[in-house]
Amino acid sequence: MTNSAPGADVRILPATEADVPVILELINALAEFEKLSHLVVATEAMLREALFGPKPQAEVVLAWQGDKAVGFALYFHNFSTFLGRRGLYLEDLFVRPEARGLGIGKALLTHLGGIAKERNCGRYEWAVLNWNEHAIRFYKSLGAQPLDDWTIMRVTGPALDHIAEK
Amino acid sequence: MTNSAPGADVRILPATEADVPVILELINALAEFEKLSHLVVATEAMLREALFGPKPQAEVVLAWQGDKAVGFALYFHNFSTFLGRRGLYLEDLFVRPEARGLGIGKALLTHLGGIAKERNCGRYEWAVLNWNEHAIRFYKSLGAQPLDDWTIMRVTGPALDHIAEK
Repeated sequence: MTNSAPGADVRILPATEADVPVILELINALAEFEKLSHLVVATEAMLREALFGPKPQAEVVLAWQGDKAVGFALYFHNFSTFLGRRGLYLEDLFVRPEARGLGIGKALLTHLGGIAKERNCGRYEWAVLNWNEHAIRFYKSLGAQPLDDWTIMRVTGPALDHIAEK
Repeated sequence: MTNSAPGADVRILPATEADVPVILELINALAEFEKLSHLVVATEAMLREALFGPKPQAEVVLAWQGDKAVGFALYFHNFSTFLGRRGLYLEDLFVRPEARGLGIGKALLTHLGGIAKERNCGRYEWAVLNWNEHAIRFYKSLGAQPLDDWTIMRVTGPALDHIAEK
């Protein structure tokens, strides 16, 4: 699906239920890298239900180097009212520090672009930290445009418990 | 579900398949208001499939004043890896200009907050135009926080056709 093969020994495959432990390990590695480990409350049971239960909420692809999972991407579908069809939203992408510089991140990103195209999605989107100019330049080189006019608003925690009463 | 009733004569109800024509009419009214009518390619058939087909992509609630649909909100679920559970994402909210000032927008917003809470969502999110300080102040008064550090990157159109080949 992608020409950006990161080397003959790396394969990108859809995750299966047996991969739940390594997915959680990679989520924890991502959180550790971002110094946000204290925010991870996901468990294997939660991921099993969310990814492989009767109503899957998201999908995961894994990057394998030999028998080691060295990266992952988690995505789901969003929806555009104007286009009248779904888009693909990349929620998280992570490559283990020791496997970087091999094009695995780019391969995951373009692989999902291929899935978006296959599924007739109108858009393919993800979020980037404003200050990460290196990443933004790279994303632009792949054809992505920053939606600079928009800010995401989030309600969470106790505020979410009480918003319905406002 | 909400105490922010916008007046006894306004009701907020989940949309049904029979509402598809009025949903499209409201989407077009929103696009006209934003001077983006040229971007609307959604049709009734597309909305029927996306909202009421075998695999619904999004959900809609309508605000009714008597027998007239005066506003709508379209939403779907996203997913947080750290929380291990889904969130609720409000994609579009619109109240007809002639029905404004009655609290219908707030009622739609807080109604969906109640749905997010009922469904055990970890987050409730939406996007706002940066320059819309009035809206941002209002959203903050409801407990929402702006994710100022993040920018959405979007690939669409021809760039999406070719990203898999990059």
